[in-house]
Amino acid sequence: MNVINYTQGVLQYIPFFYVIWSDDLLSYSEISVIKTAIHEDETLRKDDQDILISWLNPKAPPKDKELKNWKKTITNSYIKLVESEVHPLTTFCQKLVCYYHADCPFNVRLKDIEINLGIQPNHYKHLFDLEVVQEITSNHYDSSKIDLILKGKHTTVVDDFRKVLKAPIFDWGIKRTKEEFREHVLQQVKFLAKEGYGAMAYPEAYGGTENMPGYAAIFENLMYVDGSLAIKFGVQFGLFGGSIQKLGTKKHHDQYLTNTGETKLLGCFAMTETGHGSNVRGVKTTATYHKETDSIIVHTPGKNDNKEYIGNALHSTMASVFAQLIVNGKNEGVHAILVPIRNKEHKLMPGVTIEDNGYKLGLNGVDNGKIWFHQVRVPRENLLNKYGDINANGMYHSDIKNPNKRFFTMLGTLVGGRICVARAGLGGAKKALAIAVKHALKRRQFNDSIKIQEDLLMDYPTHQLRLTPAVAACYVYDVTLTHMMEIYSDKSVVDKRKIETQAAGLKSIITWFSNNTIQECREACGGKGYLLENQIANLKNDVDIFTTFEGDNHVLLLLAAKGILSEFKSEFNSAGFTAVLKLLGSRLTDKLSTINPAYTNNTDKDHLYSSKFHKHAFDYRTRRLTYTLAMRIRDYVKKGIPSYQAFLKVQTHLLALGKAYSIELAYTTFTNFTETIEDEKYRQLFQKMGTIYALHELRKDASWYLEQRYISGTKSKAIRSRVERLSTELRPHIKTLVDGYGIPEHCMNAPISKN
Amino acid sequence: MNVINYTQGVLQYIPFFYVIWSDDLLSYSEISVIKTAIHEDETLRKDDQDILISWLNPKAPPKDKELKNWKKTITNSYIKLVESEVHPLTTFCQKLVCYYHADCPFNVRLKDIEINLGIQPNHYKHLFDLEVVQEITSNHYDSSKIDLILKGKHTTVVDDFRKVLKAPIFDWGIKRTKEEFREHVLQQVKFLAKEGYGAMAYPEAYGGTENMPGYAAIFENLMYVDGSLAIKFGVQFGLFGGSIQKLGTKKHHDQYLTNTGETKLLGCFAMTETGHGSNVRGVKTTATYHKETDSIIVHTPGKNDNKEYIGNALHSTMASVFAQLIVNGKNEGVHAILVPIRNKEHKLMPGVTIEDNGYKLGLNGVDNGKIWFHQVRVPRENLLNKYGDINANGMYHSDIKNPNKRFFTMLGTLVGGRICVARAGLGGAKKALAIAVKHALKRRQFNDSIKIQEDLLMDYPTHQLRLTPAVAACYVYDVTLTHMMEIYSDKSVVDKRKIETQAAGLKSIITWFSNNTIQECREACGGKGYLLENQIANLKNDVDIFTTFEGDNHVLLLLAAKGILSEFKSEFNSAGFTAVLKLLGSRLTDKLSTINPAYTNNTDKDHLYSSKFHKHAFDYRTRRLTYTLAMRIRDYVKKGIPSYQAFLKVQTHLLALGKAYSIELAYTTFTNFTETIEDEKYRQLFQKMGTIYALHELRKDASWYLEQRYISGTKSKAIRSRVERLSTELRPHIKTLVDGYGIPEHCMNAPISKN
Repeated sequence: MNVINYTQGVLQYIPFFYVIWSDDLLSYSEISVIKTAIHEDETLRKDDQDILISWLNPKAPPKDKELKNWKKTITNSYIKLVESEVHPLTTFCQKLVCYYHADCPFNVRLKDIEINLGIQPNHYKHLFDLEVVQEITSNHYDSSKIDLILKGKHTTVVDDFRKVLKAPIFDWGIKRTKEEFREHVLQQVKFLAKEGYGAMAYPEAYGGTENMPGYAAIFENLMYVDGSLAIKFGVQFGLFGGSIQKLGTKKHHDQYLTNTGETKLLGCFAMTETGHGSNVRGVKTTATYHKETDSIIVHTPGKNDNKEYIGNALHSTMASVFAQLIVNGKNEGVHAILVPIRNKEHKLMPGVTIEDNGYKLGLNGVDNGKIWFHQVRVPRENLLNKYGDINANGMYHSDIKNPNKRFFTMLGTLVGGRICVARAGLGGAKKALAIAVKHALKRRQFNDSIKIQEDLLMDYPTHQLRLTPAVAACYVYDVTLTHMMEIYSDKSVVDKRKIETQAAGLKSIITWFSNNTIQECREACGGKGYLLENQIANLKNDVDIFTTFEGDNHVLLLLAAKGILSEFKSEFNSAGFTAVLKLLGSRLTDKLSTINPAYTNNTDKDHLYSSKFHKHAFDYRTRRLTYTLAMRIRDYVKKGIPSYQAFLKVQTHLLALGKAYSIELAYTTFTNFTETIEDEKYRQLFQKMGTIYALHELRKDASWYLEQRYISGTKSKAIRSRVERLSTELRPHIKTLVDGYGIPEHCMNAPISKN
Repeated sequence: MNVINYTQGVLQYIPFFYVIWSDDLLSYSEISVIKTAIHEDETLRKDDQDILISWLNPKAPPKDKELKNWKKTITNSYIKLVESEVHPLTTFCQKLVCYYHADCPFNVRLKDIEINLGIQPNHYKHLFDLEVVQEITSNHYDSSKIDLILKGKHTTVVDDFRKVLKAPIFDWGIKRTKEEFREHVLQQVKFLAKEGYGAMAYPEAYGGTENMPGYAAIFENLMYVDGSLAIKFGVQFGLFGGSIQKLGTKKHHDQYLTNTGETKLLGCFAMTETGHGSNVRGVKTTATYHKETDSIIVHTPGKNDNKEYIGNALHSTMASVFAQLIVNGKNEGVHAILVPIRNKEHKLMPGVTIEDNGYKLGLNGVDNGKIWFHQVRVPRENLLNKYGDINANGMYHSDIKNPNKRFFTMLGTLVGGRICVARAGLGGAKKALAIAVKHALKRRQFNDSIKIQEDLLMDYPTHQLRLTPAVAACYVYDVTLTHMMEIYSDKSVVDKRKIETQAAGLKSIITWFSNNTIQECREACGGKGYLLENQIANLKNDVDIFTTFEGDNHVLLLLAAKGILSEFKSEFNSAGFTAVLKLLGSRLTDKLSTINPAYTNNTDKDHLYSSKFHKHAFDYRTRRLTYTLAMRIRDYVKKGIPSYQAFLKVQTHLLALGKAYSIELAYTTFTNFTETIEDEKYRQLFQKMGTIYALHELRKDASWYLEQRYISGTKSKAIRSRVERLSTELRPHIKTLVDGYGIPEHCMNAPISKN
């Protein structure tokens, strides 16, 4: 045994001091926590206190020689660090004292430091050249409790649904030919209809519960089974059924809605054309009212005007066709008309031509096709006439006089689809993360030459950084989408324009996030992630198209940005516009005045972790981007540039605003939600998810904040290292966090995700 | 006709002034170019000059009212802007004068401004509310000339090969079952062997031309046909054949090499194990020398020790097996041994078990499998004995005494594979870009309400920004990889350690770039990009795994970073290390001293476009990251933290260094190459590619440069807008630029890429 020069009082603090000084982990305010503890530690003699305090001067840190002495003292004790102990570092200190001294009580002061500073074994275990009895995961949090918080009021619906998914028809398997795959998915959809899930969002009279938020919640769960199932389900009940429900009137509901919910009537949603994807308003298909026969003639005029990529096109007997409605020679704009496309023998109706779209990157269980109409005649009643109708005298009528507004009102009823697509993408990201995390908790590769066992992938800092912020972001987006769907379904909110803007932005950032996350998971699982059996590959290919359909992400972000600007819109070219800018300018100036150097340079933990900082930073960005954007457009317009051209010139600025707005919206929605969590332990956990999300997002856009001098270089670095530190801090709970998504066990059957 | 207040002299400049002031496009130094031109314009009267000069004061720009007057003057003329004219803006000015005045000569001064400032129609045509006779593409550059520059000395080899690819066996088609797909790819490989391409990199005695650089050049072209073909080809001739060629000796060459090149012998490269992917050195398979029978017994000890993911495993009759060689009870480290795995009837040899890996995300035309060996006996001669041998007396011998060095020498011979994988990824990116660009030059969506035709996707600034920097990066990486392969193949360079570091880094950044690019192309093509027939989907799935195989990108970047640090390695823990740091520190300080505010704030075009600036910025980053990294590691080590742990703590720093180093390497290699291009017009074009690459890369890492105060916020914004401007500037040439890749017409058969 070596001669030890430290008193018992000093000795017990040495592991803490070694942790503090061997790394640049603690900020000044955190060091002051330790000072206070030492001052209040009654077990310490005055001279011990003096020594310890003298080691806490950031301007004169202890010498390397001192640190080596500490290290030696620790190493020579051969005490094991046990991560799973309740206060591992404090317990370790106690054992160290026990080794060198007879008397070794447990010091409550040390425990307080450990708790208050949030020092976790992950932060220091690598510092000790000792064998660590390492637990693969911690049971500090209960994943089912987390799942309960996320499910919220949909708990019963979701739990029941997850049980239904246990049926053998939902077992995962590889189906390479589209015919076999499509047939299987069709049977799955029919099975769910039989269980009553098809009609869920419809009124009770048609077999449903009018529970759109519940529908969205189960929709995400479909992704855990298969992407094709989710999309086919969405096309049949959400798009086709939804168009009848929302664009049609009682006669349509009575005639079709129950059958649609029960899959007795299979239908498709024929909006997109080969020549018109994003620009739906410009579709070329015509629906011309013919007075003599009191019917509507649906027609495809040119070779690229066919309906394109229509899901369910090969199985359907009816299509909800979006076409330019022409009444008495006048184009009344895009309307939806129900067109029978097949008869009872499943033969094509006269004038209808359908072609298989063939194989796609993913979603090969969905039967996409092209549809042409050659002078197809349907009764006048087939017009979905909620927002525009032709009366018995053959006259067009709509309560919404402005054709522009009418078109967007019709499209607006479909915003629910965008929220559902984002939810589905999120479901894909969650499943991929769950698989990648479980793999990383099994897979070992490389090691320190002194150890026998190789290290778990999950114990590598880079691996933690790759997965943890994404794990946290799923919480943020889950809560946000749930909230959005509540507002969308709230009938008391009549003007849905705001939610349209929000859904457009969120759909974009969340589907991109999902794609990036799944890609990261694929790479994080190495070659194993590339095998279809491990189910990341199919998620990747299925979710890929979510960035395109239900609105291309770029187009949607431009739409969102224009929505944000819309409050100025009516003011354009008028004196009022300048007034609005001035107002916004002054509010910005107010905000700017608070950004003094102390704020810009503040790298303290409490500040960086505070939601006040995050909210301010996000709010500042949105406002600043809005203001500068409006200024730029105004300047162009003042110089005589047409507004269409002016908008083209600021496209990248619009995209930046759309993203910034959506991230702020997600963070704010999530933070508000966390405040409603009653259990403090879980509230704090969720808030930590929000913190890592916010800091990670700020980090990604650090160049913008630095350009604006909103943060200093030092603060930017501090944000980066806090993201790394939080990723490490959450390492013991990472399994619980992905289990908290509540993905049913029977859907987690990828070989690499099983023990 | 309106009353016009401008003299002829002033009028001719008005379109230029409108372009200058309606946007913030020109920097001060560019404005001074105009001033000079005005002063030297002899056609101008003194008072005209005074008016024009008065409009050039950046501190007192012309009033909006003035701009509106200019605009009106232009609009009222109804003159068409013809983009394809030689000096469109000057010609436009002339026509404008002709409209208002009788006399209207072509003004050479204006032409000079147009040329010197690089003002392109894309920068201003949106400013004129006039019909633009717009050419979809320009023929200013000749794509075959570009292709010639890229092919360089491999022109004949590549051109011949591209002709071979016209054979019907290389026609593209969808094959959904792995059995059919694999069989087809096998026949393609045999076809190429028959044409002599299999043996290409082997010595002449074995049917080749020992042309490794040529092999790499044709390898990229295989990607234009199909990813599975490229990989299967690479496994058979590059990995299996390469292991015989480079790790074996004459007896092996004589016995196997000719047959391998002719595909009479099909083989696989059995290195990776289920339990050991990245950590190859830890493979568990044993090869134990048995003295009595003078043979080697190859054995798989545990359940996860099987060879995994072995390409060509189902078609091969022989495997090059990497195993721990044990001679007289001593483990001599990993060596390769040739093991027959099937007999002439294609039945498995005794003790060999092979399982199909099944379906993968992509590359389903490659037959990957798992291989187990149960006490499989092969003659001692089957040891590939170039770097380590067992003599007739059963004694192990190697000229490389250090087992560590021996292992890395063996692996080093396989560096060529990494370069080829990067090349293949690059080929995928090129083809995806060519498809996306051609689609964007056909596809129209949305328009200004006053126009009849919708706008081409390629005319949207965001679309230009999505594709153009990637188009340019392909040029940079193409040239870089060609150069790397030259060095690698240069027998006069004995120490390959540097090229190993470089290949590791480049493989990582280029395969990531390829994946990101293909993803961007998929999204840029919307739903059409999702259809298999349009061939982006399969590229995406095939190239995906390139980030993992031949070395996981993260692991390779860590390797590269450690390579960069290796010059300090022997100095660790010694006084010498400090000296090295001091030296590096002083060099950095020198560099830092040049970064005065004038440099940090310099947003002038000439500066931002100069390769001197780019080189300095890249060099600064690499040095700074190296220095701070070394300092951090030193500090940890000084505090007693074991170096393995210290390296773990700086993992993200290592990754950043690996990337920074590789980007600098690519840019420097490319820039050096451009100086050798004789034709000035093409040299300048290539240099513009280098400029957009450099600025785009600086932009991506702007937060780091801002943190370091290497650039100011203003400069960061200027870099961003220069990337956007260059992307727009290259718009007329974008088709020529992707045609310059030289992808054979018969490989560009995706429906959306055809006219």
